[in-house]
Amino acid sequence: MPQHFDDAPGLCHEPDAETQQYRLNHTMVRIKDPEKSLDFYTRALGMRLIRKLDFEDMQFTLYFLGYLPEGGESEVPSDPAARTTYNFGREALIELTHNWGDEKDPDKQFHNGNEEPKGYGHIGVAVPDVESACQRMETLGVPFQKRPNDGNMKGIAFVRDPDGYWVELFQPDSLAKMGRA
Amino acid sequence: MPQHFDDAPGLCHEPDAETQQYRLNHTMVRIKDPEKSLDFYTRALGMRLIRKLDFEDMQFTLYFLGYLPEGGESEVPSDPAARTTYNFGREALIELTHNWGDEKDPDKQFHNGNEEPKGYGHIGVAVPDVESACQRMETLGVPFQKRPNDGNMKGIAFVRDPDGYWVELFQPDSLAKMGRA
Repeated sequence: MPQHFDDAPGLCHEPDAETQQYRLNHTMVRIKDPEKSLDFYTRALGMRLIRKLDFEDMQFTLYFLGYLPEGGESEVPSDPAARTTYNFGREALIELTHNWGDEKDPDKQFHNGNEEPKGYGHIGVAVPDVESACQRMETLGVPFQKRPNDGNMKGIAFVRDPDGYWVELFQPDSLAKMGRA
Repeated sequence: MPQHFDDAPGLCHEPDAETQQYRLNHTMVRIKDPEKSLDFYTRALGMRLIRKLDFEDMQFTLYFLGYLPEGGESEVPSDPAARTTYNFGREALIELTHNWGDEKDPDKQFHNGNEEPKGYGHIGVAVPDVESACQRMETLGVPFQKRPNDGNMKGIAFVRDPDGYWVELFQPDSLAKMGRA
């Protein structure tokens, strides 16, 4: 294991060759209303809807969203089967699960993991300029959980998606000193 | 918007130029015992510990894990500050949050989002051969939530991490017909 990787108890330093092509494809959260969530993830966060899969018999739809590399639209195959394979083979997607009818149920509300019982926390989105990104979110009317200057973790913001899930916004080159003595 | 992207109500078809460099960096979940979780994510899933950040004053540690492209170890900077910037600028990481002492608290248990109150679902890991990946998980003693041939969704498996969070395993080229009439 190269010196420049971090170390900690429990670590397997030499991953099994069988795992070499494993990829972290997606993170799934349940949503109440796809129209609101798609607006948030595409308009506010700038993601693209890579694949939408409808399951008539089980009455749900999966929406896979993510970023394309600049000018990367051409990497998404137009053939539906090939597009599904592309979708599941790439990295860094969010999968939104919509059970049909939840959007009309006034009592339906999902748990964002940050109140008891805690578990899941958030997704984190890297932005080139956190101040500018936050000003843009304010203009778009996106609710904030934490503004960049609130609390202990300066320069890091949290906004809330339409279901109340937290989305962290940060600027990679401004965090170099974080978590160091 | 190119014809070959999917469409749905609520979609913003032309993402704001300001979001063009946004990247989905990580998904955060809280963990009880880093030694167990690091063993699972590195030995069973084959991820690497890209960055470990300790917050002495707030008594917690963040572990960022993910896959490297084949032969990609050299892309991880050895300088600690540069490595943090790399960590937060790349895609497809999982962030494990460990509040110190939770591993010694017999009552501490996190909520995996799949029992009430539901919300978060899972992370999904693409593997080149789902049968072989599942056999390997069995051998390693990883508990299954769903084996590939259980239930409606054939070819898709779910295993459980040490806190009970679900990890989906699937083979991208075997899902081409999924969610289609």
